[in-house]
Amino acid sequence: MTRAELFSQIQQKSSFLCVGLDADLAKIPTHLKSEADPIYSFCKEIIEETADYAVAYKPNIAFFEALGPKGWETLQKVLEFIPKDIFTIADAKRGDIGNTSKLYAKAFFEQMNFDSVTVAPYMGADSVTPFLEFENKWVILLALTSNAGSMDFQLIKDENGKPLYQSVLEKSQEWGSPENLMYVVGATRGELIGEVRKLVPDNFFLVPGVGAQGGSLAEVAKYGMNSSCGLLVNSSRGIIYASSERDFAKVARSEAKKLQVEMTSLLEQYL
Amino acid sequence: MTRAELFSQIQQKSSFLCVGLDADLAKIPTHLKSEADPIYSFCKEIIEETADYAVAYKPNIAFFEALGPKGWETLQKVLEFIPKDIFTIADAKRGDIGNTSKLYAKAFFEQMNFDSVTVAPYMGADSVTPFLEFENKWVILLALTSNAGSMDFQLIKDENGKPLYQSVLEKSQEWGSPENLMYVVGATRGELIGEVRKLVPDNFFLVPGVGAQGGSLAEVAKYGMNSSCGLLVNSSRGIIYASSERDFAKVARSEAKKLQVEMTSLLEQYL
Repeated sequence: MTRAELFSQIQQKSSFLCVGLDADLAKIPTHLKSEADPIYSFCKEIIEETADYAVAYKPNIAFFEALGPKGWETLQKVLEFIPKDIFTIADAKRGDIGNTSKLYAKAFFEQMNFDSVTVAPYMGADSVTPFLEFENKWVILLALTSNAGSMDFQLIKDENGKPLYQSVLEKSQEWGSPENLMYVVGATRGELIGEVRKLVPDNFFLVPGVGAQGGSLAEVAKYGMNSSCGLLVNSSRGIIYASSERDFAKVARSEAKKLQVEMTSLLEQYL
Repeated sequence: MTRAELFSQIQQKSSFLCVGLDADLAKIPTHLKSEADPIYSFCKEIIEETADYAVAYKPNIAFFEALGPKGWETLQKVLEFIPKDIFTIADAKRGDIGNTSKLYAKAFFEQMNFDSVTVAPYMGADSVTPFLEFENKWVILLALTSNAGSMDFQLIKDENGKPLYQSVLEKSQEWGSPENLMYVVGATRGELIGEVRKLVPDNFFLVPGVGAQGGSLAEVAKYGMNSSCGLLVNSSRGIIYASSERDFAKVARSEAKKLQVEMTSLLEQYL
């Protein structure tokens, strides 16, 4: 998917919502557990009910990998069920030396047909660039994450006072463009999103941490939005586990719609 | 596997060789391609012929993941074929926020039965510690890698002149102990291995980059060995692809033996 296509979908749906598919066998409604493939049934119903409001889906690969070989078959089925005009993110946080990263890229972009994959920056250029060689496919690079541990290394300042996440942003601008490179930027620190936006005005951000992790959607939009929206805001648990009963998908729809309504007004305000 | 058991195996085999199973369908001998599971057949023969000299095997997960769901079944079969007294490393370079890292840990430590998994540090404590909660299982944390891109971020100096990889070493000492935490330390810079050894005297290092990537085994031992050896030196391509003919496993055996002979003399010299 191209950036223009993504933006067009954002405008059409008046939403920049990404629904995180953290499909956990221990958390899905009990009545699904008698299904042949409970995780698939769960994701399918979630997708059916939220697709009107979501511009992206983000399966968290760990949840599928933890199920063994069958989990990968489930992931493939889930991916194929997602409507073709919706952006797909393999939240895999991969990254290895060149020839190995190329294999990971093939796994997610060719073996499966994801639009994008999340990638960790620690190993540098040759661990990231192999993912950028696929046409109309995207790297979403970890820059500033929303977890507590993000402070351990990402905020370390270098000799010139520049925090590590800024070095990641600057260096990676040499590797990709706003047409194939996004960044993970956590929502727990509104003003930091503004810092990141100044450094990379045109790239999309994937923003986790709204809702369950405590970030505010209004702050994210205020500090992070650009003229092509430039934001995919993810919500996982707040949508998919809003109810653990038979009505889970309907409740997920209603939670997704709440966010979409808020997003509509933010798009009107800032775009 | 405990550290004592690993060291005992090193003494018994007089070797600290790790064989990297980067099993690539495009590189294995042609005659294997008619087998039901060519990658399994390849790894099986490599393991049979090198197990006398190797104290560890390191399947590179990307190579299996790139094969889709069947690749995970192959990986499971390969893992089960490795003799139980040999240390196993899932070279997966995983790392995500807490509950997700826990799922990755379960995938590699419970779903499969690997002794260890390689983990990326960028997301900090809560991305690493979930892997450290499994008894007799190991994290092998990326510290100083051997690829060109390692210079992009790992060598950035902080305000006190401390490079990032040293912050990773120091901080992670709070998370694990020499009984459950190793580090990836590349072999391409002998003197840097010495720097790392000073900072973490007791932890094992997994050292890639000997052979194909240009590092010297003698330098690694000189700078990196401690009183429990403290080294697992990996060779992948130099062993498994030393021949692409029918004799590939025998040639692999002979290459592994060459390294083991050199390791024997280094163990006598430094231990």
